[in-house]
Amino acid sequence: MKKIGVGLIGTGYMGKCHAMAWTGVRPVFGDVPDIHLVHLGEASQELASKKAAEFGFAKASGDWRDVIADPEVDIVSITTPNRFHAEMAIAAFEAGKHVWCEKPMAPKLAEAEAMLDAARASGKVAILGYNYIQNPLIRHIRKLLDEGAIGAINNVRIEMDEDFLADPDAPFQQRHEAVNGHGAIDDFGVHPLSLISTLFGRVSRVMCDMAKPYPTRKTDVGDREVEVFDIATILLRLANGASGMIALSRTAWGRKGRIAVQIFGSKGSILYDQERMNEFQLYLNSDQATEQGFRTVLTAPHHPPYDRFIPAPGHGLGFNELKIIECRQLIGRMRGEVTVAIDFEEGIIIERTVDAMARSFREGRWADVA
Amino acid sequence: MKKIGVGLIGTGYMGKCHAMAWTGVRPVFGDVPDIHLVHLGEASQELASKKAAEFGFAKASGDWRDVIADPEVDIVSITTPNRFHAEMAIAAFEAGKHVWCEKPMAPKLAEAEAMLDAARASGKVAILGYNYIQNPLIRHIRKLLDEGAIGAINNVRIEMDEDFLADPDAPFQQRHEAVNGHGAIDDFGVHPLSLISTLFGRVSRVMCDMAKPYPTRKTDVGDREVEVFDIATILLRLANGASGMIALSRTAWGRKGRIAVQIFGSKGSILYDQERMNEFQLYLNSDQATEQGFRTVLTAPHHPPYDRFIPAPGHGLGFNELKIIECRQLIGRMRGEVTVAIDFEEGIIIERTVDAMARSFREGRWADVA
Amino acid sequence: MKKIGVGLIGTGYMGKCHAMAWTGVRPVFGDVPDIHLVHLGEASQELASKKAAEFGFAKASGDWRDVIADPEVDIVSITTPNRFHAEMAIAAFEAGKHVWCEKPMAPKLAEAEAMLDAARASGKVAILGYNYIQNPLIRHIRKLLDEGAIGAINNVRIEMDEDFLADPDAPFQQRHEAVNGHGAIDDFGVHPLSLISTLFGRVSRVMCDMAKPYPTRKTDVGDREVEVFDIATILLRLANGASGMIALSRTAWGRKGRIAVQIFGSKGSILYDQERMNEFQLYLNSDQATEQGFRTVLTAPHHPPYDRFIPAPGHGLGFNELKIIECRQLIGRMRGEVTVAIDFEEGIIIERTVDAMARSFREGRWADVA
Amino acid sequence: MKKIGVGLIGTGYMGKCHAMAWTGVRPVFGDVPDIHLVHLGEASQELASKKAAEFGFAKASGDWRDVIADPEVDIVSITTPNRFHAEMAIAAFEAGKHVWCEKPMAPKLAEAEAMLDAARASGKVAILGYNYIQNPLIRHIRKLLDEGAIGAINNVRIEMDEDFLADPDAPFQQRHEAVNGHGAIDDFGVHPLSLISTLFGRVSRVMCDMAKPYPTRKTDVGDREVEVFDIATILLRLANGASGMIALSRTAWGRKGRIAVQIFGSKGSILYDQERMNEFQLYLNSDQATEQGFRTVLTAPHHPPYDRFIPAPGHGLGFNELKIIECRQLIGRMRGEVTVAIDFEEGIIIERTVDAMARSFREGRWADVA
Repeated sequence: MKKIGVGLIGTGYMGKCHAMAWTGVRPVFGDVPDIHLVHLGEASQELASKKAAEFGFAKASGDWRDVIADPEVDIVSITTPNRFHAEMAIAAFEAGKHVWCEKPMAPKLAEAEAMLDAARASGKVAILGYNYIQNPLIRHIRKLLDEGAIGAINNVRIEMDEDFLADPDAPFQQRHEAVNGHGAIDDFGVHPLSLISTLFGRVSRVMCDMAKPYPTRKTDVGDREVEVFDIATILLRLANGASGMIALSRTAWGRKGRIAVQIFGSKGSILYDQERMNEFQLYLNSDQATEQGFRTVLTAPHHPPYDRFIPAPGHGLGFNELKIIECRQLIGRMRGEVTVAIDFEEGIIIERTVDAMARSFREGRWADVA
Repeated sequence: MKKIGVGLIGTGYMGKCHAMAWTGVRPVFGDVPDIHLVHLGEASQELASKKAAEFGFAKASGDWRDVIADPEVDIVSITTPNRFHAEMAIAAFEAGKHVWCEKPMAPKLAEAEAMLDAARASGKVAILGYNYIQNPLIRHIRKLLDEGAIGAINNVRIEMDEDFLADPDAPFQQRHEAVNGHGAIDDFGVHPLSLISTLFGRVSRVMCDMAKPYPTRKTDVGDREVEVFDIATILLRLANGASGMIALSRTAWGRKGRIAVQIFGSKGSILYDQERMNEFQLYLNSDQATEQGFRTVLTAPHHPPYDRFIPAPGHGLGFNELKIIECRQLIGRMRGEVTVAIDFEEGIIIERTVDAMARSFREGRWADVA
Repeated sequence: MKKIGVGLIGTGYMGKCHAMAWTGVRPVFGDVPDIHLVHLGEASQELASKKAAEFGFAKASGDWRDVIADPEVDIVSITTPNRFHAEMAIAAFEAGKHVWCEKPMAPKLAEAEAMLDAARASGKVAILGYNYIQNPLIRHIRKLLDEGAIGAINNVRIEMDEDFLADPDAPFQQRHEAVNGHGAIDDFGVHPLSLISTLFGRVSRVMCDMAKPYPTRKTDVGDREVEVFDIATILLRLANGASGMIALSRTAWGRKGRIAVQIFGSKGSILYDQERMNEFQLYLNSDQATEQGFRTVLTAPHHPPYDRFIPAPGHGLGFNELKIIECRQLIGRMRGEVTVAIDFEEGIIIERTVDAMARSFREGRWADVA
Repeated sequence: MKKIGVGLIGTGYMGKCHAMAWTGVRPVFGDVPDIHLVHLGEASQELASKKAAEFGFAKASGDWRDVIADPEVDIVSITTPNRFHAEMAIAAFEAGKHVWCEKPMAPKLAEAEAMLDAARASGKVAILGYNYIQNPLIRHIRKLLDEGAIGAINNVRIEMDEDFLADPDAPFQQRHEAVNGHGAIDDFGVHPLSLISTLFGRVSRVMCDMAKPYPTRKTDVGDREVEVFDIATILLRLANGASGMIALSRTAWGRKGRIAVQIFGSKGSILYDQERMNEFQLYLNSDQATEQGFRTVLTAPHHPPYDRFIPAPGHGLGFNELKIIECRQLIGRMRGEVTVAIDFEEGIIIERTVDAMARSFREGRWADVA
């Protein structure tokens, strides 16, 4: 593989993030093919052209199908709203392209299953945009867990909280419509699930509670009922028997990007918080008794691939740089390497777990993950 | 009331804590009657005499009934293991004494109900040793909540974790027997519930999961099955409609006295952790947008009764000093003042909530709190 | 020694703290003689009587000389403003009493030297109220240093900051008069020096800068010049050759009781902050490279004498409880035990170091500590 | 200006950082000309070619003069060891190129002055690589200071610590030779000075102490004397009258990229630490008294230009991304915009301050900054 032709659909938050990743991956890693930014698709030709100039894409189209149809395009980055993912991804696979699709797969489980079928049928690389798992520290935590550094895991807690919907006076928006999903459990819940999948494997069953802090929201024509749940708390059991909990809120004032992970094992504990993504905490019961305490470990070159970005410890990566690592993993997959990334096979498990959460809440009891 | 005659039963962890509280309450507060340390009861005359000398009690007995029968004793501090609480407290009420009993009330709900009946019949003051609610900062948080500082509460999370049972190689102990209760939900759970009761009022329903990280423990004659659950996680709804969660672990390596509280409201958030009991965190959405952040507020003289201990801010109270505050509240009750303390009327609600947790776990579904 | 007769002069911030310490020392430690609270002295008979009742002293006088003359008094706690220390302490020694005097010794070095002479002549115990050194964690840090846990020390930094003089609109007060000393270097500087003395030994030379953030203060009759310096920063060299720095401010908004210590050695580092006095941080270069980080160690029973207060780790001591430990050390000295406390022999070194700071500032160059 | 032709000399730590910045600046900001990566120079043709391929440069040379001579090159990034800066920068100016030179300017003040003369003579843009000042939060702190949010500043403390020279057993390296400068004061000291320059303006005088924790280091042929000072502490006065302190250590175990800033004013305080570069702390005395505390403010889109990277708050920038911001400022200067960056005119003040530090240390007294 001498070069990679990239197509990009969508130029919002995640679209720009993909563009920066495709641009940055080569100078950072040095060991990847030439990246050709071939074709950018947006909702209008005007916007597409403007963004193509900014991001450095050669061609621009107001119709996403042009991107997928472009023979110079090897892989398509899909960063549009969730409800478009299925159609676009399936079309891309049918056109013989690799796909890098933002998470979650789709608002409805059936659509996600169809996406997986299309991916399987195509034989192409199909990766989802779960960037938090790409943090060098998350990989290092996985290594520690695999090595048994903190022994057998008995309890896991993950909280994901932000406050972008915390203001009760903010108006009704599309996010509040059921057509876009259940609320916190799909918008947020998939991230903790991606961490669980990466660190521990499967969830076997869940018991979910969901809540609407603000049952109605303002519109220009009066109040409208909010159809989704901004808060959710989920009891869970992992396939390995450990108990756990996920707590989610999109209305948690002061939380901006919190993903707080607590892992308790028979020999120690590990803590991590995405808001301070360049450090994690480790407690080892093998330390001298009088000096036992949680160590605050700063990310460093011996936590690869941090070393590809910075040769000095403690200087810190940014959120966007996780996407560059994800991009490198994706390229590895295209070359047949075994890399850390959540593909559609693994992603469908996450979608099914979310589905079980919703079912559990409806029925008021535990639900097995299919 | 010119003076108070004190009887103390038990001289372990909490017994000593009561003794220090009875000794310290007058110099700290200055506004209480003379405290006479009258009679100390322990399991043997020898131990009783030794401890009476250390703690400054005038009389010592190897039979707790002598303490309760002593006519100079006005109030009895009961600090023995939980399974003795009911018998002792009921006897004390029947002897016309006030009672200050360590938490929880009793291993079985029926016993706790009997204790309440005896308290009611006696008309005496009946206070439980829920010291964490006495932190000046917890009171200040309650004041903030009452004033609506963070608006309507929509979500509450409380974690209580320690690691004294975290070592899988530690031997079987009495705590592992079902006769002493369910495990985490009564040993620990009552503390978060005391905070909920103080800050928010009642829990209406619960959904509880419990787990045994180490199903067996070593004894001299081979492994023995652990009968209680060291880990529990509980979904809950408050009477005011807010959703919530309690997570408990006695096997959480590195946690020593963590009681982490997160309260999310429509206007802000409050965080607190008992391991750093001299500070709390406050986020207000009314702060200037560009400078919003969690404030770390250090305890200070304007958080009464901290001012009775230290006239300078940020110098810090200790765990034992919370008991001195509790003692002052108790004395206030004896004088007919309205004070902050969990009496048997409020305590029974906590016991019933624990009972609902156990029921919910057995049945695998939500349980209403009676 | 069957009993100790206590005299107390002064009932302000520190006077109450001494009273609580004398009351609490026996129930906490159990191994001390009976403490008799004999005689309390204050500026008026009325105040003395009121406080004696609150604190539990048998006698009360409006003349401090009565306390010192009382034959039942074995030891005198001197907690009056600094300018009275010399006269009172010298009189107490001459009356054959032991002395527990609050820090610093006196505003002028000559007075402090006279106090030391009187102490020596009397042969009595002469202890200064340097309570911060009594924290079980400070003792544990000393143990770690003595054991070479972090190797040879090359750099030490101590900051002590509060904000009680930070408001520029606050009126002129006695503290702003030169008769009470230099400002930050004696009011605050002695505390870092007590820590240096306890942890490392002597300071050999200093280079001091001082500043007046608010050169004038309001009075009822117009502005008045502030005669002391609220801010000071001092370069220093320890006798063992290490370099160091002390930074002091009484006008540091937000700092309430900060005494931040940083100790760097050839094998690791130690951090401590009095505002979180129940934890310290330890970094060891011998930890596994990929998991090196500062450990947050919570105070625990294996950091004596924490165990005398609480049998469980991480539950926390308070500022006042350090005085109880100090009191226990004092009693040990009265019994001829070797204990950790700053006596007048060690205290005079601190006073001379402050004097060298002032001299260095006047002359604009390094000054040797006499 | 339709496009910018870039030359890069050096491909180490900072060379790669410049390459990533030149690559990333356009997709991030969108408002800059086409960036042409024209010519890369390294010590050998082989290395130059290898790195040119990785970083995407069109031409590669083993002689840096070829880069400077290339007519397609508009601006030269100089990222070689400090001792080469002067010769290269002067040659670049003489060839009519703009210069982006890594900090500090040069090991000797005379060389730095010559660089400034050449820059002035050329009229070209001459920017130094002081990336820490580009943090959106540092800019926001500057805005707060300019607006008087914390009133008149009375005290500033900056610590910069790392541990890459902390191991006493590590061998002698080039850094330990005097030909490369004084040690901590130029290698590290220039960063705190860049922050002071950005936030407050000039330093008027300094009093410096320096220390060698390890006076000798191992070589293959025995121990060799270390010629530089890894530790330095500096008292200072700002031109505005405030007092301050800088503490520096390259042997501070556990510190990886610490630049801890404390700013105290008449109305509040600001704290910042580069190791947690996505947050700062603010204390305002105008907050409600009972809830005053340091706010931990997370970086957010309303701290520009964070918004150009990420539209959501609290997600975090990385160290490398500060270089992208610096690059955008540089491009602005090339277009005649007023931007935040340290040019040679401002940089020479920093070099002169370092020179005054060294003089002060030699003479043992305060030194004025020329």
